[in-house]
Amino acid sequence: MSKFFTQRLSSLEAYVPGEQPKDMQYVKLNTNESPFPPSPSVSAAVMEEAGRLMLYSDPESARLTAKLAEYYGVSASEVIMTNGSDEVLNFAFMAFSDEDHPIAFPEITYGFYPVFAKLNRIPYTQIPLRDDFTVNYRDYVGIFKNIVIANPNAPTGLSLSSSEIEEIVASNPDNVVIIDEAYVDFGGESAIPLVRKYKNLLVTGTFSKSRSLAGARLGFGIASPDIIRDLNTIKYSTNPYNVNRMTAAAGYQALVDSEYYTNNCKIVVQNREYTKDALRLRGFKVLDSKANFLFAQSPLISGEELYLKLKARGVLIRHFNTPKIANYNRITVGTREQMDILLSRIDEILKEKKDENS
Amino acid sequence: MSKFFTQRLSSLEAYVPGEQPKDMQYVKLNTNESPFPPSPSVSAAVMEEAGRLMLYSDPESARLTAKLAEYYGVSASEVIMTNGSDEVLNFAFMAFSDEDHPIAFPEITYGFYPVFAKLNRIPYTQIPLRDDFTVNYRDYVGIFKNIVIANPNAPTGLSLSSSEIEEIVASNPDNVVIIDEAYVDFGGESAIPLVRKYKNLLVTGTFSKSRSLAGARLGFGIASPDIIRDLNTIKYSTNPYNVNRMTAAAGYQALVDSEYYTNNCKIVVQNREYTKDALRLRGFKVLDSKANFLFAQSPLISGEELYLKLKARGVLIRHFNTPKIANYNRITVGTREQMDILLSRIDEILKEKKDENS
Repeated sequence: MSKFFTQRLSSLEAYVPGEQPKDMQYVKLNTNESPFPPSPSVSAAVMEEAGRLMLYSDPESARLTAKLAEYYGVSASEVIMTNGSDEVLNFAFMAFSDEDHPIAFPEITYGFYPVFAKLNRIPYTQIPLRDDFTVNYRDYVGIFKNIVIANPNAPTGLSLSSSEIEEIVASNPDNVVIIDEAYVDFGGESAIPLVRKYKNLLVTGTFSKSRSLAGARLGFGIASPDIIRDLNTIKYSTNPYNVNRMTAAAGYQALVDSEYYTNNCKIVVQNREYTKDALRLRGFKVLDSKANFLFAQSPLISGEELYLKLKARGVLIRHFNTPKIANYNRITVGTREQMDILLSRIDEILKEKKDENS
Repeated sequence: MSKFFTQRLSSLEAYVPGEQPKDMQYVKLNTNESPFPPSPSVSAAVMEEAGRLMLYSDPESARLTAKLAEYYGVSASEVIMTNGSDEVLNFAFMAFSDEDHPIAFPEITYGFYPVFAKLNRIPYTQIPLRDDFTVNYRDYVGIFKNIVIANPNAPTGLSLSSSEIEEIVASNPDNVVIIDEAYVDFGGESAIPLVRKYKNLLVTGTFSKSRSLAGARLGFGIASPDIIRDLNTIKYSTNPYNVNRMTAAAGYQALVDSEYYTNNCKIVVQNREYTKDALRLRGFKVLDSKANFLFAQSPLISGEELYLKLKARGVLIRHFNTPKIANYNRITVGTREQMDILLSRIDEILKEKKDENS
């Protein structure tokens, strides 16, 4: 920290993204990316924009916004597009929470929520999960606080039903409830159909997972026009041209090609169930994920040891050195081939472990 | 504003970007874009990334950062890359200013500075320009405040010398001085060589103007490693993957092709001088711009009327309805052909005006 750094943020601890090592080729199962490339026509759409880059992007991302609105059955005034969904989440923290309007979220969830809260100096409450790692939705009913819930939750993959979400939203009419649906396309129930009914609901989404565009950075928010207007006030006060031309074109084309992505999601779900069963056969405890990752622990090896030994064998998974979940690992679901490599490496490691102990 | 919007930002007035009309083809001289497309190899570089978009971008933008550091003769630890230079400016406001550390900038300058200050609830002082629109650098010597100066300044195009900047930086050792060099490549003197000498200097730049990448969104900051570390703390607390893969590739290639862009800048400077002389011949008062735009007023027609009449004739320039400069317009310098269209439309308008008055 330089001597110039503001006191008001001196306790800020930044988010640590999953590692992106450059030293060898890994089977990369640590940041929940899609194993599938974007649809072929995305490249052509990007290429068309590449020759026009001397011109600013449309601050309203009007063409993309209209397409996304059409896809989700809402109107353009109910949509904001952002530079990844982290951006819309940060905008929402800034717009609706403050010293007098605290925010609540699960104790175990996306690690960025406490960072956004600290950055914006917002008091926050972390509500413990049940022992089985489920979110107890009743903990959020009528709590008179702003709320953010990842649904499905990360890193557990467990999800709430649409009616449970509705009860949370309906019982906190004077607070904004953010439902972060980064992983919804792998089996969760979306709250988007509730947006018209509840003026206090903001649903956020991303093109990073189900639409194979993590490297393009594209996220969105869907809410009442009033909420969207507020988020735009923040956007136009930080970065009006937040979505660049190439990403806007890629996102538009991804929506056009939605069949391709829906099919990819189906394959990921199949591979998830396959891997879950295989891990359980090997004695792992594996949560019932509705996301593109599994959260799993073995009684035979600690989370950290498994993570390190897999890494040494060229398979990267995500380990969180955090109370209550330090024995678990989050494993991104990739192709069937990647999953088979993972499983055979795990078999090697567990065998070695058994030999050591015998 | 929704009923949920935080009181603490209720007086925020967002920045209004230059208009991007979709109703007809304009000669677009209102947002200081380059009239030249990116170098041909930028498209190929972008294309290569388009097939890898399912993977997150490198949060450190390491390859691009190293290239930019090499270009400017600094080390990678002295560089941060951002989603446009608005982002690095906002990060700097957040990191170094607060209730107890106000910031000062010229009264007439980039309209985003007061917005960043309000957004972050930072007290700010707007220091008047001299009557000839120059920044009096002595006003900033030893003022014990953080400072941001666009050099060349916008919308005037006037610039301070490197030694004047140095006196400002040297005389405020306990404050951060930000020099915003968005327009420096058209004839200004860069303060980057001072970064090693002064730990309190942050120089920001953009690929939007001289490098024809406004639509890709790429900016940067150069400063001591301590300052860069602080800016990274903010980045990793808002949007770790702020620069997408395609933009990083485009920026890298633009640095490789720097000769192409240097040559374009020379053409823009020639066209600027040509247009300045032509406007002066027509009775305009035109400031001595070192940027890719001219700031000009005619004694024969108000700034607003000229703007509207040019717009009706298919030429878009930027008018600011702001005290002290309402009679001026900011005119982006484009190709020689665009400048000749501008001049002939102005001739028509002034002739019409004379006929009306006679």
